Parts: sequence; structure tokens; C-alpha cells
Amino acid sequence: MSGLDGVVARIGAPDDAARQAAAERQARLTKPAGALGRLEDVSVWAAGVQGRCPPHPFARVRVVLLAADHGIAAAGVSAYPAEVTAQMVANFLRGGAAVNVLAHHNAAGVRVVDVGVAVDVPGADASMKVRRGSGRIDVEDALTAAELDAALSVGLRLADDEADAGTDLVIPGDMGIGSTTACAAVVAGLLGVEPEAVVGRGTGVNDEGWRRKVDAVAAAVRRADRLETPLDGLRSLGGADLAAMTGLLVGCAARRTPVLLDGVVSATAALVAAAVAPAATAWWLASHRSTEPAQQAALAHLGLEPLLDLGLRLGEGTGALVALPLVQAAIATLAEMATFDEAGVSDRDG
Amino acid sequence: MSGLDGVVARIGAPDDAARQAAAERQARLTKPAGALGRLEDVSVWAAGVQGRCPPHPFARVRVVLLAADHGIAAAGVSAYPAEVTAQMVANFLRGGAAVNVLAHHNAAGVRVVDVGVAVDVPGADASMKVRRGSGRIDVEDALTAAELDAALSVGLRLADDEADAGTDLVIPGDMGIGSTTACAAVVAGLLGVEPEAVVGRGTGVNDEGWRRKVDAVAAAVRRADRLETPLDGLRSLGGADLAAMTGLLVGCAARRTPVLLDGVVSATAALVAAAVAPAATAWWLASHRSTEPAQQAALAHLGLEPLLDLGLRLGEGTGALVALPLVQAAIATLAEMATFDEAGVSDRDG
Repeated sequence: MSGLDGVVARIGAPDDAARQAAAERQARLTKPAGALGRLEDVSVWAAGVQGRCPPHPFARVRVVLLAADHGIAAAGVSAYPAEVTAQMVANFLRGGAAVNVLAHHNAAGVRVVDVGVAVDVPGADASMKVRRGSGRIDVEDALTAAELDAALSVGLRLADDEADAGTDLVIPGDMGIGSTTACAAVVAGLLGVEPEAVVGRGTGVNDEGWRRKVDAVAAAVRRADRLETPLDGLRSLGGADLAAMTGLLVGCAARRTPVLLDGVVSATAALVAAAVAPAATAWWLASHRSTEPAQQAALAHLGLEPLLDLGLRLGEGTGALVALPLVQAAIATLAEMATFDEAGVSDRDG
Repeated sequence: MSGLDGVVARIGAPDDAARQAAAERQARLTKPAGALGRLEDVSVWAAGVQGRCPPHPFARVRVVLLAADHGIAAAGVSAYPAEVTAQMVANFLRGGAAVNVLAHHNAAGVRVVDVGVAVDVPGADASMKVRRGSGRIDVEDALTAAELDAALSVGLRLADDEADAGTDLVIPGDMGIGSTTACAAVVAGLLGVEPEAVVGRGTGVNDEGWRRKVDAVAAAVRRADRLETPLDGLRSLGGADLAAMTGLLVGCAARRTPVLLDGVVSATAALVAAAVAPAATAWWLASHRSTEPAQQAALAHLGLEPLLDLGLRLGEGTGALVALPLVQAAIATLAEMATFDEAGVSDRDG
């Protein structure tokens, strides 16, 4: 047993008094009401999840980067060979990837966890590895019931680790060749939409690759057509990374740790996590709209509107790190701007 | 004479070799080609305007904030009384405004220049003041020919000041009750579009205020219907801030200083500056889409696609400061990520 049910039951709501105080403070700052647009909403969210007004800048941000392989990669659904997953894990550990560069510039940490890479990467933390590559979802389940449970437990444990370490904002990162195919399958399976509507170009497949991907997702959804719960979808169509991330998202909400979602992998995990734990959604902020239609479908279903729309499709947590300075700007303006009274500026007429 | 023609003749193009080198380097970094979306384009732009690949993070960023009053404020086109212009200048000098907070967090400087405020603000630099409030454009020209010339000269001088001081990125900031009405008039006059299509809510006018604003713009454009040059539009419908900013944008291009545009005031000045000096456009990046339709019309005409769309409508240079970390992220990923060869990561199949 992953203990998920008990964790779900502990999820509370963000602090409504802090949210209200933030909204009221926004109205007194020396700017026209609403002139900072979405940043004002973000500042109110930050006040709520931190339980104080004004909120502090997020000072201990961590990317929890979950790496795993996907058996479906063998179906030719990616522009890159499957060994890139392990190679990129090594790249993360050496600090050469986009996530490392962006985390460094945001003073954020990166914790790389191998939850399902096909091989062992020297130096990588494989202590929470659930299996070596998920099942090939067009012909078999991604995970067994025991593996699903183990992966969810890994995510819950990571959420506890981060909360205990004082992390004040978690960014779920991902790496895994084939993962966007698994995401499309989970989203198609759970939302009941056609594969064509949720399959994207992933790492950049051509038209033939996209067609193979659609066929793989269609076969997977057909095979798994008796999903009784959202967790069945995760087990049958997802993978170790998606399952661990689902646990991470639920666990963070239970520990009152806010989460800045990234791309299609975190949106897919969020879709499952919200189905299991609707109250968790209030702890998440969507950072960017990726080019993957499954991400857009999942965010729309969750009612989450992303901050950025820059055509990002890299994963790793990079889109969330690109958006992080906007969150900090939202907090800084709420916390540090003068009010009309303080500045002796006339408020609006009438 | 402002000397504008001579400055226009000195505008060169960004460095094409650096741009090409940046585009080629993007293709070798450990990520799928194009996976950083718009950030990749921004990194190529930065390489071009800096003339080197990889480009450096912008390290000496300055907001040049031009404050001026607009006679049209008397027509009831703003939600705030006209004295707010001077009060906000005082707020800028004390560091209490949004532009101060955001500049501080981006290690950017703010230079506040009174080019046309109706009163003198203690402590403000009024040495380049062109006049006290622009003419009420529904019944008279905003500026005389001599004042237009003086304001353009102020902008050119500020561009030289910044280039001489080593500023490596200029953000044009603005403050002036009534300025969005002047912008709508200039854009409507130059592009020949209906006032209704370019008049926005500015600081947040209600329906009656919006109607007064449309009427004011319509009256202004009708009055000034024999504009022979874009500079005529600036003189007749604009104001001291818009004219000085036009000079600033042209001058920065001549000095090879890149500019991160902000909201409707800088987009309107850019529209005029590009009409006078088409080559200047390559030196500018659009930071955000504001809620002012005149900004959207001007940027579309210039072929500039903004990075952000967050419903910002504050001016002061704030939108550009919110977007600045994205520009820095684009540069950092290009400069610091490992290449496929360095990291031993397999490039895409075929």
C-alpha cells in the first residue's frame, strides 16, 4: 500500500485570510487596480499557499527530476534513441542540461531521481527505482499494481523529503524518451478524447513518427479500455515517472508545499492527482503552455491557465524555471510597492 | 534641428555572423532542436545585437523613464486625476513604484526624466523639460515644431548618455496621465484605423470614460487630418514623452544599443521611429502584449511578436522588466548548456 488514501485525507486548503489580505493590498498599491494583470493573481496564490501577506520570495526552490524509460519508445515514437534517457541523466549530474543552467540562474536546486531508467547511470540515485523501463503500453500494462504502489510511495516520500528539508516550492521535472506518448495515452484514456487530439510532436517527430505515435496511443487505449479508476490509467498507460510524479503532487499538497507545474508530464500527473485528490489543485500553479496538445487538454480540464506561451517543449522542469522569475516578480511587487497612502498619490476619481 | 536625419543615416544592422553562429550553436545543444521555442529566437537576437556568440547576460540595464503630462487629460479620458503624473514621479524618486521594485530585483537602473510634466517635482531632473504638459490634442497640436525638435533631441541625447555610460540594454519607461489617449491618436492617425479599434481602457476607465476617449481621439485625428509625415503625427497628436522616446529609440539603434520595448507608449514611439528609420527595428525586442489595442496594432504593424501576454497595462517600463529574466534565460541556455558532443548524448536519429 502506498498510503495514498491517508495522504489525500490530510490535504487542506491554502490560507484564505492571507489570500484576501493580498487581494486587498493589491488594491492599495500605487498602480491602477488590475494593472499588473495575471501577476496580481499569482501574488494572491502565493499569499495563500504561504499563509502570509505579503508572501516572501520563494527562497528554497527545488526541481525534483524523475527519470524513467518507456517501453513504447521501441515503437518509433521519438526522434531520439532510447539511450538518450540515461545519457541525459548523466548530463544532468554533470550540470550541462538546460534544467541545470536555468536552476543555477534561479538559485534553485535539482534533485535527479532514477525511478525507471532502463540502465543504471553511474552516480545517479537509483535507490528508488521502481523498474527498468515501463511496459510497452500498446501491448502490455506500463506497471504492475505493486509497481504502481511503489512509484506512488516514491513520490510521497520525495514530497516528505522536500518538505522536511524546507523546500518552499517544488518543480516537478521529467526525462524519459517516449514519455509524451505515455502522457497522450493517459490523457486520452482518462478524458475519453481521440488520440489525434492529444498526440504531439514530442521531441520533434516527423509526420510518419507522429502517425506511429497516434497508432501506439490508439492501441494502448483500446487495450486498456476497462479503466475503473484514474490510478488504473496510470498503471496501465503511464509509467514509473508519471506515477511517482502523481505521488509527489499529492504529497506536496498534503505537506502544504506549493508546486509550479512544468510541461506535459507534470500536467498529466496533475490530471491523475487531481482525480484522486481534487483539493490538491489549489496548491499548483501552471507555468507555461507547451506545444503538446495533451498538456493543453489536461490543464484545461484542471482549470489551470499557464503564465507563459513560448512554444517550449523541453520538459526537465525548464518551463517552470523560465516562469519562476515571474512568480517572484509578482511577490516582490505585492510586498515592496508603496501604497497610495504611503506615497501621497491620489487614488482614482470617484 | 534635432539632428535626427544624421542619426538615422548612421543606423547599421545587427551582426549577422553572430546571429548565424547562435542559430548553429542552438542546434548542437543537448535538447531537441527548437525545444526552447521563442527563447531560441531571443538568444539569436541577443547574439546579433551584442555582436558575439554566445552573447553575455545583459549586465547594465537601464530604464529611461520619460514623464510628461497630456492636455487631453482635461477631457476626462483617465480614471485618475492629472496630478498623479507628478505624484508618481515623486514615487519613482522615492523608490516606491512597481518599476523601482522590478528594477531592483533585476539589478537594473532607473533614470527618471521630466520631459513635460505640468509642474516641477522636487528632486526630479527637469533639465530636459520641453514644455509643461502637451497641448490638448482634440483642439490643438500637442507640440510646436520647435518643441518636437527639442524633444527628439532630448531622446537622442539620452541614447548617447546611455551608450556612453556602457548601458547594454535600454528599457523605455513612461508616466503620464492621458498618455494612452495620445498613443491611440498617433496610431489611429498613422495607420488610418478607426479610434474604436485602438482606444483601450488605459488606467481603467469605465464605459463612459472609454466613450469620451474615443471621441477625443476622433476629434484629434479629424483636426490633424493633413499629416504629411510620421513626425507630423507625433507633433500634432503625440506629446513630449512620445517624441523624446522616438528620439531615444532611433538614437539607441544608431549607437547599437538594444532596446526591450514595454507597453503602448513605447510601441507607439516605435511605430513612429520605424517609419523614420526602418533599420532601427532590428534593435528592438517586444516584451509583452498589453491590454491596449493601440499597442497591439503598432506591434503587429512592426512585425514584432511580444514574449508575454499577462494582461499587463501599467507602463513605467514594468512589462519589459517582467520579461527581462526570460531574455537572460535565453542567453544563459545558449551560452552555458553542454553540446551533444561535450555531453556524449546521441543526437536525433537520421
